[in-house]
Amino acid sequence: MNEFDFIERIRKLASERGDAFGVVRGIGDDAAVLKSFAGSDVVVSTDLLVEDVDFQRHTAQPDLLGHKALAVSLSDIAAMGARPRWALLSVGVPEGIWNSGFMDEFYSGFFQLAKRYDVALVGGDVSRTGSKIVIDSILLGESAKAGAVFRSGAQPGDQIFVTGFLGDAAAGLRLIERGARLHQRTTTGSYSDSDVERDNHRLDPLLLRQLKPEPRVGWGLLLGEQQLATAMIDISDGLSSDLNHLCTESEVGAVIDAAAIPINPLVIELTGRRALDPLMLALHGGEDFEMLFTVAPTNVNKLPRRVDGVRVTRIGEVAPASDGVRVLEGSRTWTLEPGGWQHFKG
Amino acid sequence: MNEFDFIERIRKLASERGDAFGVVRGIGDDAAVLKSFAGSDVVVSTDLLVEDVDFQRHTAQPDLLGHKALAVSLSDIAAMGARPRWALLSVGVPEGIWNSGFMDEFYSGFFQLAKRYDVALVGGDVSRTGSKIVIDSILLGESAKAGAVFRSGAQPGDQIFVTGFLGDAAAGLRLIERGARLHQRTTTGSYSDSDVERDNHRLDPLLLRQLKPEPRVGWGLLLGEQQLATAMIDISDGLSSDLNHLCTESEVGAVIDAAAIPINPLVIELTGRRALDPLMLALHGGEDFEMLFTVAPTNVNKLPRRVDGVRVTRIGEVAPASDGVRVLEGSRTWTLEPGGWQHFKG
Repeated sequence: MNEFDFIERIRKLASERGDAFGVVRGIGDDAAVLKSFAGSDVVVSTDLLVEDVDFQRHTAQPDLLGHKALAVSLSDIAAMGARPRWALLSVGVPEGIWNSGFMDEFYSGFFQLAKRYDVALVGGDVSRTGSKIVIDSILLGESAKAGAVFRSGAQPGDQIFVTGFLGDAAAGLRLIERGARLHQRTTTGSYSDSDVERDNHRLDPLLLRQLKPEPRVGWGLLLGEQQLATAMIDISDGLSSDLNHLCTESEVGAVIDAAAIPINPLVIELTGRRALDPLMLALHGGEDFEMLFTVAPTNVNKLPRRVDGVRVTRIGEVAPASDGVRVLEGSRTWTLEPGGWQHFKG
Repeated sequence: MNEFDFIERIRKLASERGDAFGVVRGIGDDAAVLKSFAGSDVVVSTDLLVEDVDFQRHTAQPDLLGHKALAVSLSDIAAMGARPRWALLSVGVPEGIWNSGFMDEFYSGFFQLAKRYDVALVGGDVSRTGSKIVIDSILLGESAKAGAVFRSGAQPGDQIFVTGFLGDAAAGLRLIERGARLHQRTTTGSYSDSDVERDNHRLDPLLLRQLKPEPRVGWGLLLGEQQLATAMIDISDGLSSDLNHLCTESEVGAVIDAAAIPINPLVIELTGRRALDPLMLALHGGEDFEMLFTVAPTNVNKLPRRVDGVRVTRIGEVAPASDGVRVLEGSRTWTLEPGGWQHFKG
């Protein structure tokens, strides 16, 4: 199939559900055209995923990769307290991948998640590459009427919250690196005796947190619409890095209570005999795509306990900038240096 | 330099000229936030550039690559008759490139062109790659108040126009493939006797059309604002492919007059002894980034002859779909098959 036939097919898939919200022109022109709405701003993010750096071809099934490409961008838009609306995808693949079932499965995973959040694919680009897969996921959304939530609005005294569990995705990654594979798709595969991780199916929930992250779209929308968060960021690099980003932008410090950090009991159970420290995974592990946000003391009681079944946990308090970003662990406190993922450490 | 320091530096460069038009939030948050304006829609495009496929590292100077990344997207937005406003850049590079002067030069070329059209860089992403450079250029613009110009509005009887010359960029590419290099930067380099292209500086205008394309932003804006074009596309794949795209979307045919196609005298002069056919370059050569558009007969006399010094030429007429897309050459006509660039021929 040549690229124009392929684009035509994606265009049909993208328009299958009739006219999408606000799409004046979708796939099939030089650019997409989207309706402007008075009273809400346009929010836009881009996320580059590179094979062998952000994912491994032999562990990332194409449909899960399609899911993840959109999920990371949904998480960015959620972190602005905005509603996701329109997506574009730039995909570069080598010839061999083009002629395999990869593209169909990839877009199938993408569309499945897009459908759930009513996101329309309105454009993109396709290119050949020499040998590696590369994906750029672009997502546009509409800010809450009251305005987007920035990283920069936190004030000393605000309470710090995080959704879900921290460290799951990092635990999943370590397990994958040690040979664990998703049970749901590997039933036809056989495992050699040398496979370290043979209690495979029990690990699936953690592997999926790495391979098929669930963005906290509902939380983002609620916090944006009700203007409950003074500042927000999604945890993509790791709590230590992302909390430092938020504090830098807000020109504040923070104290985190180590004992309050929500850690999945499964991580605690499974990491012990694998020489992994759950607290370190929770502090520095990336790709959990949970929302990290701050709430003024007077608004804390307005916060729901769960949204879409995902709970929220208070993990600390915003402090003056001079206090730095610290962790309170038992009777001692220590400075939380950004220890999360970096593409280039310099 | 680590990636966060780098992003901080780009953020400073991007905001150097004070508050950019409509930017509520630029670089430094989870997503960019852009003001919505009643009466004009948002136009958005994405273009993926892959090393060794879309460009060669040894022939594309980093600053020219930065220029080209934005230029191709400016051309897309121009082809919608829209005004470019806000850009995002996803850049993936290997470690060695990160630690070279590449990034600075690349962004310098990008910003130089951005400044000319008052485009603000409002976001992006940075990733490491294994060995190749990959760039995704995202550009948002505002449609003309009267609406964007689509590929789909051409009617039989409309006149077909093209800006500038066709085939220059393809001629430039062929010359580069045969060893020609830009004179302006190669004065310190030496040439071996085996170099085919030693009359280097004379070739510079054609090499620059390939390496440093000039998008027809002025033409796009004029045609959009005055609603003179019934349909428009930019010539990125080649006239034969892009005219066929336009005709397919408009459900029309076309007759092109071969003798009317504007060909650069320099191409005619330089290609003769290089076994290149100027007409074939003009018909099938990609990356000229000229505007191809159709105009209703009653509006033809309203068209200016030049915009920003770039002329326009009438090359044919829209026909009924049943006529197909044909070229009139002397006394014979032949079907113009899409013969332009394709990443995947299927």
